[in-house]
Order: sequence, then C-alpha cells, then structure tokens
Amino acid sequence: MNLKLTQRQKTAELFRDILPADSILSLDEELKPYECDGMMAHNIVPLLVLLPEEIDQVSKVLRICYDNEIPVVARGAGTGLSGGAIPHEDGVILSLARFNKILEIDSENCTARVQPGVRNLAITEAAKPHGLYYAPDPSSQIACTIGGNVAENAGGVHCLKYGLTVNNILELTIVTIDGETVKVGSGALDSPGLDLLALMTGSEGMLGVIIDIVVKLLPQPTDIIVLLTPFDSIEVAGNAVADIIAAGVIPAGLEMMDNPSLVAAEDFVHAGYPTDAEAILLCELDGEAEDIAADQEVVEAVLRKAGAKEIRVAESVEERLKFWAGRKAAFPAIGRISPDYLCMDGTIPRKHLAQVLKDTHALSEHYGLRVANVFHAGDGNLHPLILYNASEPGELEKAEELGGKILETCVQYGGTITGEHGVGIEKINQMCVQFTSDELEVFHAVKAAFDNKGLLNPGKAVPTLHRCAEFGAMHVHHGQLPHPELERF
Amino acid sequence: MNLKLTQRQKTAELFRDILPADSILSLDEELKPYECDGMMAHNIVPLLVLLPEEIDQVSKVLRICYDNEIPVVARGAGTGLSGGAIPHEDGVILSLARFNKILEIDSENCTARVQPGVRNLAITEAAKPHGLYYAPDPSSQIACTIGGNVAENAGGVHCLKYGLTVNNILELTIVTIDGETVKVGSGALDSPGLDLLALMTGSEGMLGVIIDIVVKLLPQPTDIIVLLTPFDSIEVAGNAVADIIAAGVIPAGLEMMDNPSLVAAEDFVHAGYPTDAEAILLCELDGEAEDIAADQEVVEAVLRKAGAKEIRVAESVEERLKFWAGRKAAFPAIGRISPDYLCMDGTIPRKHLAQVLKDTHALSEHYGLRVANVFHAGDGNLHPLILYNASEPGELEKAEELGGKILETCVQYGGTITGEHGVGIEKINQMCVQFTSDELEVFHAVKAAFDNKGLLNPGKAVPTLHRCAEFGAMHVHHGQLPHPELERF
Repeated sequence: MNLKLTQRQKTAELFRDILPADSILSLDEELKPYECDGMMAHNIVPLLVLLPEEIDQVSKVLRICYDNEIPVVARGAGTGLSGGAIPHEDGVILSLARFNKILEIDSENCTARVQPGVRNLAITEAAKPHGLYYAPDPSSQIACTIGGNVAENAGGVHCLKYGLTVNNILELTIVTIDGETVKVGSGALDSPGLDLLALMTGSEGMLGVIIDIVVKLLPQPTDIIVLLTPFDSIEVAGNAVADIIAAGVIPAGLEMMDNPSLVAAEDFVHAGYPTDAEAILLCELDGEAEDIAADQEVVEAVLRKAGAKEIRVAESVEERLKFWAGRKAAFPAIGRISPDYLCMDGTIPRKHLAQVLKDTHALSEHYGLRVANVFHAGDGNLHPLILYNASEPGELEKAEELGGKILETCVQYGGTITGEHGVGIEKINQMCVQFTSDELEVFHAVKAAFDNKGLLNPGKAVPTLHRCAEFGAMHVHHGQLPHPELERF
Repeated sequence: MNLKLTQRQKTAELFRDILPADSILSLDEELKPYECDGMMAHNIVPLLVLLPEEIDQVSKVLRICYDNEIPVVARGAGTGLSGGAIPHEDGVILSLARFNKILEIDSENCTARVQPGVRNLAITEAAKPHGLYYAPDPSSQIACTIGGNVAENAGGVHCLKYGLTVNNILELTIVTIDGETVKVGSGALDSPGLDLLALMTGSEGMLGVIIDIVVKLLPQPTDIIVLLTPFDSIEVAGNAVADIIAAGVIPAGLEMMDNPSLVAAEDFVHAGYPTDAEAILLCELDGEAEDIAADQEVVEAVLRKAGAKEIRVAESVEERLKFWAGRKAAFPAIGRISPDYLCMDGTIPRKHLAQVLKDTHALSEHYGLRVANVFHAGDGNLHPLILYNASEPGELEKAEELGGKILETCVQYGGTITGEHGVGIEKINQMCVQFTSDELEVFHAVKAAFDNKGLLNPGKAVPTLHRCAEFGAMHVHHGQLPHPELERF
C-alpha cells in the first residue's frame, strides 16, 4: 500500500508542470468515484485521475505517459456497460469531462462541432432552435458523452433507421499516444486514403484520444407516431418485425419487450403497457404526415396479418413519450425486481430471433437464473438481462458464465457478441469465440500501428492469443460451426 | 528488354505448380490489355497477369509474392478512373475476373454473398426475382465489378439516399499478403473489435485481396418518379439543391448538369434535355406512391421558390430512363465533343457549391481549357470534366495541373479530393495537400500493419513523405488555411 502511494506521488510529479493542481486527483476519496463505469460488478482504483482542459495539455499528458510507459484509460461520463473505462491499477484515468463545449452549430451544412465531454442529449438541445437534432440516442443519453459514444460506437432506439454513431459523425480530431494531433474523416461525403474515421469509431480508447468531433445533424421530423402492439407469443412478435422490414418500411424505432421486462417497466413508470401480453412491439414512424400515414397503413396490415389483435396508437405527445419512457427505463426497472442484473448485448440476423430466444430460455433454466429480454428488434440487437444476486456466493460468476453462453449462441447463429455496448472487459473472452487467431492478430497489428507500447486502455476489447488459449474457446465463426460446449445442453 | 523477358519467365516459373497454364499470362499480346485501367492516360505493362479461380490459389499466389517480394496489383474489371489498377512494371496483376459467381441470395435477411468478380449490375439482376436490389450504382455498373467497388468505395447516383459501398456491405473475406484468410465485419448490425470492414473498404488494394463479399439488398421501391428542372443559372440550381435537403427530403438521386454537359448528352442520347438551360436538376423520388406524392409536393414548392419556371415530371418509365440515360452517358458524351477529357472527383460542403464553381471557371480560363460540370449535387460530389487534346504537346500535363488545382480548391473549402473514384495515382499529389505529415504517417503505419513489405499496390493512394516534399505542397487542411498557390490567380 505504501509502495502504491509512493508510485502515485512520483507519477503525479510528472504532470505538475503541465497541469494545474486541481487537474490532478491523487487522494483516495478523489479516486474512488473513478473505480468503475456502468459495469459496476468490477472496480479498480486508478493510480491517478487527470482532468486536462486544453488540447495541448492532453497532448503533453499523452507524451509523458508514452515516455514513461504509463497506461492511459480515457473516460467520458463513465456510463458504458462493458467496462471500457475501468481503470488500470498502474495507469492514469484521462478524464475528458472538462471538454464540454459545443464549439459550432452549422445549420446550413447540418453539422455540429463538439468537444468529447458534451452530453449526447445536449447536442440535440443545442440544435433544436435550428430545427435539427442528433439521431443516435442511447438510453443513457441524458448522461453519456459524445466522446464515449464514439469510442463505443453507441446506438440507441433510432439506429435502425438512422444508423449507429459511426453513421452520424463526419470528422474526428485525435491525439495519438505520442502526443500528435491528427484529423480523420472530413466534412464532405467521402475522405480519401484509409477510412480511419470508422476505424477509430468503436475502437474503445485503444488507438488514440478523441478530442474534437464533427457530428451530422438531421432535420427534426415534422410528425412522429408510435404504435404499441401486444402479442400472445414472443415468436410471433419476432416474425412480425421481420415482416415489417420486408414490406419496405424502415421505422424510426422498432423495439420489443418480453413479459418480465414489460411488467417491470409498467410497475416502475406506468407506461400504459398491457401486463398480460407475452411481448409488446413498439413501432415509431417519423417524417411528413402523409409519409407516416402511408407507412402506418403498411405496418398495421403486416401486424394484423402476423396475428396482432389490437394496435394502439399513442394519441398524444404525452402518451407517446410514456410508451418510450417504459422502454428507456427497462434496465432500472429490472433493477427494482432483482438485487443485481447483467445486461448483455448480442446481435443476430433477424430470421434467427425465435431460435435464439428458445436457446436463451434453455440456458436460463440450465443455470437457474431468470432472463428478461429487451430488444432493438428491428436490427436484431438483443439485450438479455440476467437477474442475479451478488450477495449469494458464486452467483455473479454463474451470471457471467450464462451471459457468455448467450453471446456464444449469438455467434453460432451468425451474429456477434456486441451491438452497441462494446467489448470492454465484459466480453473479452467471447472475442476468442468470435474471431480466429489470424483475425485477432490483424487487430493486434493495427493496434500496434497506433500504440506500439500498448499503453492505451490495455487489456480491453481485443484479447491476447494467450488469453484465448487460457479461456480454451472454440472459435465459432459466423455460425458455420456448431459449438460443442453448447451441445452439452 | 531481354532482361525483362528473363525476369518474366523466372517469375512465371514460381507459379507453375499452383496455377494451370491458362491462368498465367506472360506473352506481350496477353499482357497488353492489362496495361491501364479506366484512367487511360497512363499505362505500364505488368510483369505477369495471374488469373486464379480458387481462394486457395489466391492464398498461395500471395504467399509466393510475399516470400519473393513481388509487387501485387489486384484487378477487377479495370473500369476505375483514378489508376488504382495500373500495373507495377516489376509486379503481377492478380485478376479476380474468374471469381464471378453469386454464391447466395438470402431474401429473408436481404443479403447476397458474391465473389469479387461479379458485375455490380449482375447483383441487382439476380436479386430482382426476390423483389430486392443492390443500391450503389456507379455509372459503369454494367461493367464494373463489386470487388473493385469495395476497393474504391464506389458511389453512384443513388448514394445520396442509400450511401456509398461501405454503407451497403456487411462482411468481407480478405486474403492477406502472407496468404492468410480473415473475415471482417459480420452479417449482424455491428461487429466487435476494430472496424476493419470500413478500413478495408476504399483501401484501394493496399491492405489485402478481397475474395468474398456479403452485400446488403434493399426492397425494390414500389414507385419512382423523376423531376427535371431547368435553371437560368447554375448558382440558383445549386442553392435549390441545398434547400431541398434542408426541407427534410432526401431524394433517391439529385443530380446537376451544366450547359456544356447537358448539350453534349442531349446530342448523344437525345434524353429530352432543354439545351437552352444553363443547368438542369434531376431529382428522383422513390418509395410508396403516397410517400412520393408527399415529397413531390415539398420538392416542387422548394424548386419554384428557388426560381424554377418549369418542372417536368417524367410521364412514363421510358421517359424516366431517358432522363437518366443522359446523365449516365455524360462522360462518353463529352468524349464525343473533345478528343480527350479528364474526369475529376472532388467533394465539397454543399453551401460552397457556387463559390467553387466560380473558382473552377477562373481556373479554366487561366489554363485555357474548357471544363464541363456534372454533379452528384445532393452530396456535394463534383465531377468537373477537363476537355483537352492529348495530341497537342503539353496539353495532358496542363489538364492534369488544372485538375490538381480544382481538387486543391475543394480542399480549401473544407472538401476532399475524392468522392467515389479513389486516389489511385491520379490524385496522389493532392493527398499531400489534404493531409499533414503526421496524418500520412498514420496511414503508413496502418498500411505496414497489413503489408510490412509494401507489396500490395505500391505507389498508389497514399504518397510517401518524400513524394510530398518533392511535390512541394502546402498542406491545406479542411479549409482552415488559405492556399498561397491559388492566391496567385
């Protein structure tokens, strides 16, 4: 402990010349709030927390870390669910919290230039007077910051129609580990050379520190309607989702909740959900009134054909917001009925929805842990919530193992182990299932091109081959091989 | 010459064990057709052309090239306009022409798995019976192949609404320079780890050889209409484009042609264009009939407000196709009125359209060469066509210099030097204007992560710092610095 203190003080000294005293946190009580992110099951106290305010300071901090081989974990609001911002015990947390300015709203080009510590929702609030908004809307959008959204390639309810973060940004300024500033992407349609904008997006802090972001803004839709449809069977609801997309309508949002989720949400926020339904589908349509009317006709016909007996259209803005409030509060609502829960984040091709749900149910019974399901159904992004009690010895481990199996099932059906939450530390073992050694080696080579000393967010997102060997994972690629471990059930 | 022949024979020997005789081209008359691509002003005879038919052969070819340090230029149909498939004199052309099979159409998931040598239009033709199509539609879509489309991140008339190639593919299988096979991307919404799918797309053959592609298919729109609007002034037409987008309508296509282009096209294909107009705007709307009607109302109101005196709606499928035929034939039409032309491909933020056209006009007068303009106007992608006569000594060089200046003007206004044609050799000097040395160094580091010996398409897309020093370019980044060379005019 005393050794740690000495290390802490010695490291803090390195930054005294470039940062004011209040930008260097080194006391236990100052460091404590940074010991975990939204994945609260794991925590580590960082060596130091640094809070620079200027790009030049970030650049110098990184250069010092580079020269002294100090690990660096960049952090926004710390709302991430996969542990991407969990500290390194011998490293610094580089907080971007003070980069919280909206630098420009360009209403003519429909773009905004923002600093990484700006909250997601603050962008839309600033764009509103111009009739514009920023489309990606993670459930945490009140709190989460755009820098973290870029680092994790965040999604949200509206990413079915409007895409993930990567589809809604144009340009990034990055500070590299050796302190240089580079721009990637451009304000125009395409950018020549390699697509480093996309490479950087979702790279979970492993390639550089994002210090400036140009986002796309969209015109606010003239009208919005939301349909709520109860179903007697989750499989029938799943098929209706595929049918809507196949009919050529891309709703602004298309979300499904199973009975445990919708009951928990209803008890929590009184959204007006029918608690006797096995599943509900929320379908949002946006655009001009005439466009919506045309799409609504198609969607309602598809829903009825699929077996819907009732379709409720939100009759006021209040009711529409209530419908969504239930969905957006699904996670905390589950938190009220279970001491703890793990939120998973797999994606699958839509057509395998029913089968994956069946397998998830079987796994849930096998492990003796309840699973509630909330889906970005339209894009095949599942959020199984595993209910457990951390104070029961061994139950966290069991929940994590079950979570891993669910993700491996997603891979088995040609899906992936993450939709929008990132890999972080949560799913790092499942990366060994998703990718071959050759593929992981390519990731490592690209990582080394940006960070040859491996200082940026070490231990996250891309496992070492050694780790995969220890995990003993059988690579299951794109559903082409059966998974022998799963066959045991 | 004799030396070359010996080198050729010796190199061919390396591949005899793994390829049948008819897959190794080494005679002068066999090599001649491969000496250039669609950028016909430059040509180089390759050392050899190899035509493998199986992935395993591609893998072995690359491994041999790696071990013997032989440069490799992958080639599809060779329709590219920036010289990306121009041979290396000491290297092999790796033709993917025999990988021409559509492996699977998955109508349920709206995807197709295709080999790289499949023609762009063949995908749509195969998808048609399922009510689906592949959206990106380069003007060369009858001939160009999907592998080349991925390598150059090709666009087309419909990319305004449906995105570039990168937005329409889900998964790639790549063979690396040392012969390993890796998959990038996934059939699901997102892929964990680094976004190598986007990195690979548009990488112009520098990172690996694409051997298998999963593309997205879209439901065919129920209805399509096209509006043709003549304008008295190209600037007014440009402003109308911005107004349409700002009104919240994203047309399926929004194209502009100036007077020289539309006259040439009219003379060539009799598209029905009004030859007395200074510019015409072609606006395509697609979707359900009701959606279209709603959008049409908005677009017509915007056009009239912008100053349009006449709006013609194509009254039959034939007329609609004729309207587009003129636009798609614009390049060959210019070929009929000028012995030679250079097609440029810059993009700019829409709001600077009028100013960039003015500057282009000034440059055109300064160099004494005519410039015709064809635009993907909606997304700010310009295609200035520089008319010249290659048989006049020095005129090609003058045209290339003018082209370079036009691209640098695009950069000056916050745009980029390519929209959809790639950098290749054509715009390699302008990369020095677009990017700083630090930024180019990041490109080189990423390139080295995939290809440490620099054998994949050497000399293309990303200039060496040495080359930039020779070119003497002043870096003009995102329009933030004035360009001293341009100020001379």
